[in-house]
Amino acid sequence: MSALPGVKALVFDTFGTVVDWRNGIARDARVFLARHKREDVDPLAFADAWRRRYQPAMEAVRSGARPFTRLDVLHRENLDALLAEHGITANEADRDWLNRAWHRLDPWPDAIPGLLRLRAKHFIAPLSNGNILLLANMAKRAGIPWDAILGAEPVQAYKPQPEAYTRTAEILALAPHDVALVASHNNDLAAARRAGLRTAFVLRATEHGPGQTTDTRAEADWDAIAGSFEALADQLGC
Amino acid sequence: MSALPGVKALVFDTFGTVVDWRNGIARDARVFLARHKREDVDPLAFADAWRRRYQPAMEAVRSGARPFTRLDVLHRENLDALLAEHGITANEADRDWLNRAWHRLDPWPDAIPGLLRLRAKHFIAPLSNGNILLLANMAKRAGIPWDAILGAEPVQAYKPQPEAYTRTAEILALAPHDVALVASHNNDLAAARRAGLRTAFVLRATEHGPGQTTDTRAEADWDAIAGSFEALADQLGC
Repeated sequence: MSALPGVKALVFDTFGTVVDWRNGIARDARVFLARHKREDVDPLAFADAWRRRYQPAMEAVRSGARPFTRLDVLHRENLDALLAEHGITANEADRDWLNRAWHRLDPWPDAIPGLLRLRAKHFIAPLSNGNILLLANMAKRAGIPWDAILGAEPVQAYKPQPEAYTRTAEILALAPHDVALVASHNNDLAAARRAGLRTAFVLRATEHGPGQTTDTRAEADWDAIAGSFEALADQLGC
Repeated sequence: MSALPGVKALVFDTFGTVVDWRNGIARDARVFLARHKREDVDPLAFADAWRRRYQPAMEAVRSGARPFTRLDVLHRENLDALLAEHGITANEADRDWLNRAWHRLDPWPDAIPGLLRLRAKHFIAPLSNGNILLLANMAKRAGIPWDAILGAEPVQAYKPQPEAYTRTAEILALAPHDVALVASHNNDLAAARRAGLRTAFVLRATEHGPGQTTDTRAEADWDAIAGSFEALADQLGC
């Protein structure tokens, strides 16, 4: 008996749900900051500050204030602003290298073992706000076994816009109810449910570090609730 | 010394170049025709007739006569017309099953061994007129190791429209010259070259059967010319 009977495709939030963005960004920021003799800047705080600019940047697209712009470009604009704030000058190659730290994030330890099991019975793809190249380079480096790279760029919309979910189902030629979003963020799942998708919460209690206060539990009766991708695979009979 | 020095990404025509569409469609058409007691229809001729409707259907999109429509939909319209021509009635599930024969095509024997070698040094993706689901299901079934599923749907253009090539390079954040199209069709390569991409011809002498008269040789000085994906991997030092 599956917790998501009849579901054909599983689509995954990526930053936080599949990969540990905070430690990955801090790892490469540490190298960058040392190269620029700025060991006074805490790499984890740098990662958090970069990430805080993420939602406002996408909001300009969601609101229609600017046309759809892929996340690598938004990340780079945000990085340039953050470096200016710290008075750090860096050349193009150096900035591009750090910007591509988002392509080099590591999965949580249970992610790939769980995905390999889930993939045997379902179509699996990221439904991330990351762009195709970012998600594909991440998958290639880390060995994430996606069946296709979906997400904001093919659908030209950023979550939690409803089109991000419904157009993904259209690409898969499925009714929204035959698709489940797997995410560690309650607001993402709520938007997916409003768009007609099914929902699976996976707890990531340290996405924001040891003192995390948000998304520490499932805040609604999501269709599946699990502590890891492997536990989710158990619940889906995979 | 590589035949394509500095090339970062290889993108592949798929129908004909990676997979043998004619025998794959005929294989499933044979099952369908037998189920409908129409063994009088030759499955290979059926495959050819279905394929002949392919370019005209895309031309309606290229010309702007209709909005971008994914290939699964065009294939289905063409199938419905072909079945009507033969006076075959079939239910929805049956038609959908046959339409998805395009998702179940087998690669030429050298394709996957060659792609596995090419993938070690390059980003590899289909640049096909097939839609994402078609290409992803094909890859999942056959084990084609794409790094991402690109093609007409993410770029909303059908080859040989120049945007099909240039927008693919944009998705990859590469200059067109850093991308090479691998194809068995001279006209596809010519359009890619006009769009600024590099070009690799791979001979598929029996795509259209034993009596094939088109694309039996490289008709221009493509940057690489090979008899198989494995020979191409040799030329690229992979």
